[in-house]
Amino acid sequence: MVRVRLVVSYLGSGFSGFALNPGVRTVAGVLTEALERVLRHPVRLTCAGRTDAGVHAWGQVVTFDARSDVELETVQRAVNHLLGPAVVVRGAAIVGAGFDARHSAVARRYRYTILNRPVPDPFLAATSWHVVEPLDLASLRLGTDPFLGEHDFAAFCRKPKVSEGVAFSMTRRVLEARWLDLGDGVLRFDIEATAFCQQMVRSIVGLLVEVGRGKRRAGDVRGIIAGRDRARSAPPAPPQGLVLWEVVYG
Amino acid sequence: MVRVRLVVSYLGSGFSGFALNPGVRTVAGVLTEALERVLRHPVRLTCAGRTDAGVHAWGQVVTFDARSDVELETVQRAVNHLLGPAVVVRGAAIVGAGFDARHSAVARRYRYTILNRPVPDPFLAATSWHVVEPLDLASLRLGTDPFLGEHDFAAFCRKPKVSEGVAFSMTRRVLEARWLDLGDGVLRFDIEATAFCQQMVRSIVGLLVEVGRGKRRAGDVRGIIAGRDRARSAPPAPPQGLVLWEVVYG
Repeated sequence: MVRVRLVVSYLGSGFSGFALNPGVRTVAGVLTEALERVLRHPVRLTCAGRTDAGVHAWGQVVTFDARSDVELETVQRAVNHLLGPAVVVRGAAIVGAGFDARHSAVARRYRYTILNRPVPDPFLAATSWHVVEPLDLASLRLGTDPFLGEHDFAAFCRKPKVSEGVAFSMTRRVLEARWLDLGDGVLRFDIEATAFCQQMVRSIVGLLVEVGRGKRRAGDVRGIIAGRDRARSAPPAPPQGLVLWEVVYG
Repeated sequence: MVRVRLVVSYLGSGFSGFALNPGVRTVAGVLTEALERVLRHPVRLTCAGRTDAGVHAWGQVVTFDARSDVELETVQRAVNHLLGPAVVVRGAAIVGAGFDARHSAVARRYRYTILNRPVPDPFLAATSWHVVEPLDLASLRLGTDPFLGEHDFAAFCRKPKVSEGVAFSMTRRVLEARWLDLGDGVLRFDIEATAFCQQMVRSIVGLLVEVGRGKRRAGDVRGIIAGRDRARSAPPAPPQGLVLWEVVYG
């Protein structure tokens, strides 16, 4: 057997998230089914970031084991024929046996797009959050600074269902977080962290939009992080604005 | 009464074209219904370009008559609330009684997008044509030149169902036609003409893609135009790559 790494792109709209979930259409579900059909042996996927329902990916990374005579180009073409254009394999490579899509990743980059103008845009609706109230870019940026560095993100993450007695940490290190004004009301938020816990990017964007609208103050963000209380934060931004952009390996 | 002009944007995917068609979901159908609900009087729309099923618009223009006390901002907001983001009114203005979305237009601009690379893209699939075979840009451009100027476009248009004895001309003047390479395999075709007959842009793109693939020669295009025979041309390019981009008024 050899280990295969795929870079996978998908629109989250038609899926109940990435992770396998019997009886529900998920990205891992259709991808596993397509790979098993092409390879004719069972496939067990590992992924770099388990995106939630409705969240997109440009550079999701998955690994799995295949027979050593696997022809990557044929697999890529066959899977894209079966699943494209909803799910697309952008690249395929053989990697070392110790490489794991999840554990070998040193960082993940997410991108969130906001359309900030009174009138919606049919062409951007599937991949952005339409915010009508004017957002102040300087406040968005001021409110973003406190997220940089290592923090316990309990105020911004959905608590996982863990077995009793299993310790779970929500401490993550944010390496980069910045807002770009792309013009015509299109605002883009890029955030890179060693790892993310569930709903973390959407919850951060949800709070920052409240800051940008003037409903909350940028100066309060540090305290909200430190408070580790989700009730003091803000509801998560909608999923369709979010894209798992890239996974970084060492 | 006053005449109102709207600039309307829509994704064609969910509609059986623009034109009213009883029992079928069309853009004019939902727009007329929304306007009548907001204005509380019958509305009769005129449009600048009747896009076919699946064709999008960024700058479709429509005109209709409304009561002179019409509040344009309220109408725009209410219609966008009812129809957005599938159909969006981007602008609204009172125009002179003699202004007509169709007859006052001096030119229309259409935009066609091709994704020319082996691997599809989930994010572009709804608004482009994925062409796997490599296209030669120089050939696309050489094949485009003969379309400039005034021609009888019978080889590129669906014949309208006209009443017997009614003369119908397919002579149109192309003012501009150019290909842009946007990188990463994204090719954009912009074409402006005084007017277009049905399926004209898609049929031109269909032929040019055969030229770009080397299946037909750029040198044959002039003869195909002159032949005025649709059977000697090529099948129309798929609708989802096409956008009615802008309508030009004098």
